[in-house]
Amino acid sequence: MTDKNIQLTSTISEDNKLTLALKNIEMPKPNADEVVIRIEAAPLNPSDLGVLFSAADMSTAKQSGTDENPVITADVPAQFMPSLKTRVGKATQVGNEGAGTVVAAGSSPPAAQALMGKTVAVIGGGTYRQFICANVQSCLELKEGTTAKEGASSFVNPLTALAMVETMRAEGHKAIIHAAAASNLGQMLNRICIADGVDLINIVRKPEQEKLLRDMGAKYIVNSSSDTFLADLTAAIIETGATIAFDPIGGGQLTSDILNCMEVAAARDIKEHTIYGSDTFKQVYIYGALDRGPITLNRNFGFAWAVSGFLLFNALGKLGTDTVMKMRKRVADEITTTFASNYTHEVSLAEVLHLQSIAAYSKQATGEKYLIKPQA
Amino acid sequence: MTDKNIQLTSTISEDNKLTLALKNIEMPKPNADEVVIRIEAAPLNPSDLGVLFSAADMSTAKQSGTDENPVITADVPAQFMPSLKTRVGKATQVGNEGAGTVVAAGSSPPAAQALMGKTVAVIGGGTYRQFICANVQSCLELKEGTTAKEGASSFVNPLTALAMVETMRAEGHKAIIHAAAASNLGQMLNRICIADGVDLINIVRKPEQEKLLRDMGAKYIVNSSSDTFLADLTAAIIETGATIAFDPIGGGQLTSDILNCMEVAAARDIKEHTIYGSDTFKQVYIYGALDRGPITLNRNFGFAWAVSGFLLFNALGKLGTDTVMKMRKRVADEITTTFASNYTHEVSLAEVLHLQSIAAYSKQATGEKYLIKPQA
Repeated sequence: MTDKNIQLTSTISEDNKLTLALKNIEMPKPNADEVVIRIEAAPLNPSDLGVLFSAADMSTAKQSGTDENPVITADVPAQFMPSLKTRVGKATQVGNEGAGTVVAAGSSPPAAQALMGKTVAVIGGGTYRQFICANVQSCLELKEGTTAKEGASSFVNPLTALAMVETMRAEGHKAIIHAAAASNLGQMLNRICIADGVDLINIVRKPEQEKLLRDMGAKYIVNSSSDTFLADLTAAIIETGATIAFDPIGGGQLTSDILNCMEVAAARDIKEHTIYGSDTFKQVYIYGALDRGPITLNRNFGFAWAVSGFLLFNALGKLGTDTVMKMRKRVADEITTTFASNYTHEVSLAEVLHLQSIAAYSKQATGEKYLIKPQA
Repeated sequence: MTDKNIQLTSTISEDNKLTLALKNIEMPKPNADEVVIRIEAAPLNPSDLGVLFSAADMSTAKQSGTDENPVITADVPAQFMPSLKTRVGKATQVGNEGAGTVVAAGSSPPAAQALMGKTVAVIGGGTYRQFICANVQSCLELKEGTTAKEGASSFVNPLTALAMVETMRAEGHKAIIHAAAASNLGQMLNRICIADGVDLINIVRKPEQEKLLRDMGAKYIVNSSSDTFLADLTAAIIETGATIAFDPIGGGQLTSDILNCMEVAAARDIKEHTIYGSDTFKQVYIYGALDRGPITLNRNFGFAWAVSGFLLFNALGKLGTDTVMKMRKRVADEITTTFASNYTHEVSLAEVLHLQSIAAYSKQATGEKYLIKPQA
């Protein structure tokens, strides 16, 4: 085991600058219930980009340093600085999850020592580094033969997709609408819903995304770019009875469109018109901010509705420990099938900080996904 | 007891016309659990205007007939007709509540007969008429000495205001924000909160509304027209810990402003910045549509939030029968104090259909309130 440990950090300084850089940090020593993991693969999720870039205007990004040790600087618009004051001057760690090999373990025999040499996935703590120290509770032991690359995305997308289905059940809905449905997360959700017999309406924007999901067995696919989108969505809602939706976009009118289509579907059997709309409760959860613009709600959907933020950790808290433990076990069991991720690019820690990579992965194009290999 | 019974009706016809007219209807005969009430006073609530005018463009309204038997016609824009198909051709009754004297009672001794001759308030059924037949469960017996005018608004505003406080308690919040707070409903909510020791932040638009509420003992009043509105609201939220708001407006940015101020208040103690915002759950209930324009949410408030429709009957269903029975008893006990309504105009059924009255009451100006006297 080497003593070299490189970490990617994101720092905002008082002069309205963002700086991204690699730092040499100490090799960690595990406490009793901790292990040290050599991170071999970590995904670049949309939520990681938020931490990485914060509120910086990346069109102003400049690269300096060397190819092996690049430094990125970019301007942070002054109006965002007040809300960032707890970040100013601190080298913030980045990376919500990853996977690798346990190379050192604390003294606790069943918890830590049992993981020695195993391939594990890990959540939290800034995984864009070479060696991380983590509590065993943050680790998911992968089945023998699972690679770090296969296990790199064991938490954020799999648990979010499972939490959507469990939330649907817990809140009494019977089918799901998913926006930006061709994403890695969307593909997982499609596989879960097929396996569990839950009807899923996939909203995509492009014909090739329709084809991708259709080839994966999706039954309900509607294209929001189509002239018949609202009619298509309403017809699918009538067929499935979907009254809950998950949307990672937020900005724009899609949430409103979904609620209005749900209401048209719900109101079609109403004998007596009321200004309050149908009694059918309609829920849209917004779980991302792919569009940071305003969410515009054009109310034609009565009074039985909610639009809410959806955050994995809050959702898991609501679902409870038993459900969450079952979800984790299912992820480990099905990580190469139901929960398989597909990466289109692999980069080293240094390459994460190359301008041409940033230009590519910051687009967050559906179907494009980056994997970081910190040992490369 | 006369045989004359006049009812106000609202009808939409297939040629995109709204017609408001008075009709002679039969004098009702009560079944065992029913009573016949001579309606002596009924309020014009915003929710009644929605039924009365439906989607008609009232700027096109014309009056015909006589002063005693007026007829109003107005155009319904073609785009709204599809959503109104269950209303077309039906003479829809109007009036959500009212009060008067029980002049006939069904055979059931304890339920119906016990109300004979009493002054009662009644919910539902189209109270803009002279004599109405109602199930005793829809009636609230008023205390001896309470007049029909005093009891006319015993349901919609009092129960909505009480449901807000009970919902705050049931959902674990500790203080309330109320928009359009100088309304009759807002004044009731202010009195309830003072009596119950609940902190209430009143949002108003005008200095005279600030004065009105201040004279009624309100402690927290912020003016949304002020340059310092956001700072004032944030300061009041910090002082009270309010994380739930009720807004009858909907359209525009107020809901968004409230959530953002709540988040600023919640985030001020956070040591470590996160892109997901604070853990503090923030709820805005929209209970009206004073502004039918789009609701615009400018998200700077993280992921722990919900914006939901709030409808009295759904809210009562969630709160449960025991709570609702206590609420009804409190309304009857305190109808001339906590739940007192203030009417600025009294009109006959015919006068409801005079163009100059329509022009006045359709403005829904805060502080203006119309009472209908069907026996006048």
